[in-house]
Amino acid sequence: MRILITGAAGFLGSHLCDRLLADGHEVIGMDNFITGSPDNIAHLAVNDNFSFYKRDVSNYIFVPGKVDAILHFASPASPNPQSKSGYFNLPIQTMKAGALGTHNCLGVARINNARFLLASTSEIYGDPEVHPQAETYAGNVDPVGERAVYDEAKRFAESLTMAYHRFHNVNTSIVRIFNTYGPRMDLEDGRALPNLLKQALLGQPLTVYGDGSQTRSFCYVEDLIDGIVKLLYSDEHYPVNIGNQHEMSILQFAEAINKITGNQAGIVYHENSRSARDPQMRQPDITRAQTILNWEPKVALEEGLRRTIPFFKEKLGLA
Amino acid sequence: MRILITGAAGFLGSHLCDRLLADGHEVIGMDNFITGSPDNIAHLAVNDNFSFYKRDVSNYIFVPGKVDAILHFASPASPNPQSKSGYFNLPIQTMKAGALGTHNCLGVARINNARFLLASTSEIYGDPEVHPQAETYAGNVDPVGERAVYDEAKRFAESLTMAYHRFHNVNTSIVRIFNTYGPRMDLEDGRALPNLLKQALLGQPLTVYGDGSQTRSFCYVEDLIDGIVKLLYSDEHYPVNIGNQHEMSILQFAEAINKITGNQAGIVYHENSRSARDPQMRQPDITRAQTILNWEPKVALEEGLRRTIPFFKEKLGLA
Repeated sequence: MRILITGAAGFLGSHLCDRLLADGHEVIGMDNFITGSPDNIAHLAVNDNFSFYKRDVSNYIFVPGKVDAILHFASPASPNPQSKSGYFNLPIQTMKAGALGTHNCLGVARINNARFLLASTSEIYGDPEVHPQAETYAGNVDPVGERAVYDEAKRFAESLTMAYHRFHNVNTSIVRIFNTYGPRMDLEDGRALPNLLKQALLGQPLTVYGDGSQTRSFCYVEDLIDGIVKLLYSDEHYPVNIGNQHEMSILQFAEAINKITGNQAGIVYHENSRSARDPQMRQPDITRAQTILNWEPKVALEEGLRRTIPFFKEKLGLA
Repeated sequence: MRILITGAAGFLGSHLCDRLLADGHEVIGMDNFITGSPDNIAHLAVNDNFSFYKRDVSNYIFVPGKVDAILHFASPASPNPQSKSGYFNLPIQTMKAGALGTHNCLGVARINNARFLLASTSEIYGDPEVHPQAETYAGNVDPVGERAVYDEAKRFAESLTMAYHRFHNVNTSIVRIFNTYGPRMDLEDGRALPNLLKQALLGQPLTVYGDGSQTRSFCYVEDLIDGIVKLLYSDEHYPVNIGNQHEMSILQFAEAINKITGNQAGIVYHENSRSARDPQMRQPDITRAQTILNWEPKVALEEGLRRTIPFFKEKLGLA
């Protein structure tokens, strides 16, 4: 297939390029580098099946020739208020990527009769009151909250995708991506795993907010990409959660990370101010992925961390 | 003030034009007539303070000269699956009016330092699990449901509006409009009140779905417009519910309508198939409007119906 990937220079987008090229496809990447990095796709410059256009997909998309599939992964995604490339500091670009970017992609999918895959997110569930979250859960998002720019952009993108499927018969699919980690992730992403791993590798005590009882489920990137590609190759139209259902408390995470990295500096507890707006619990119900795609994650946390640590060390200048 | 109103030829938009002209403002109306009607603004053709541009505000907005306020009321709004101008049959136009239309309006507000007022809706609460609905309630909307095109478009519009306020310091406001009735409403709107009133005036038995215990709260249009204008004149930025808090069951409505119209044909009960996707309960908590705007509805149902009946009779050829 000839496949267009927006956000190709991002964490997930670049892994998708690698995987789809390995599967024998031709890949066209697009990115405007406001959150993605040229480093993530530098190794693809010598691949004859890969081409790249620097472009803001919220403005327009033009692809010479026919495409068979479009994966829309372009969006700021970091919830870190301190991150310049996070959605708190790029609120309007984030909403445009979800609305105008998705609209442009769906237009290209429609005229090409192409399969469309939308990168949605567990954030559409907001701060969930149902646990774990199945795809039927409507979520708990305050549309005028500060986080809402990302959440509502993705909810809108999902609705627009289904509208194109129902009204224009476009072959669409929607993946709801849960927390993911691995090489090429943004160390300043603001989520618990990179924060803790960074501290551990620097020999610092790990900062745990509150009592550390809030839970997370982290999926290794290779597992996640495998689920996305299985969805792409399927004919499913309704949203599918892809993530690791193995839930751990932040405190358990911190202890596991200290153990794997051999960090002796222990754990310090901070007041809960920063994480007050973070969801307290987040865990995917992956029954649909198991049933429809025959997919489930395979890489255990210890193994995933081992594969991720070299990347973190390099970024931290410790390699 | 010089005030731009999108959706000016719609039910609410045209009443807003009337009220703001009566208040001494200059009004510029825009509409593409896909759901609005030239009839609704025909009487304004001789008003020197009113001008009109036929335009799809999702494409672009250009207004000669400075504007002081922009009210974005353009959107399909009828939930009737049979209505050609309802959002079931205009799903993509509906999403564009919420995303691109709002974006265009906010751009104009920003360069003009103008007050912006977004017409949002009680539909952002979806099928509410909290009763009555206060502005803090996050709602219960399935983003991939068929109704979601309208709900998510408005949720997105609210988020984008708040983003422009927070990030670009635009003077924004958001009204969440609950069920409204009155002259110029769409008789094919699909909601309970026009359906029942139409049947009553035609001397037919009123159709009640299920057991008629589902509740609605209907606000007379003049009350609603008064609340919106008070919000426009205020400096409030967070969403404000405007609607009538007087809740009645559909059965009570039907009985009241038969009484007022003198309809002798009674009531027939139908299976709940059509209304299964309709919210079971919808009632505004108007504490914020009472507190911040000193507003509450004044027109009782009987009086509102009496003022509405001549319009219905004319449309039905009974005048």
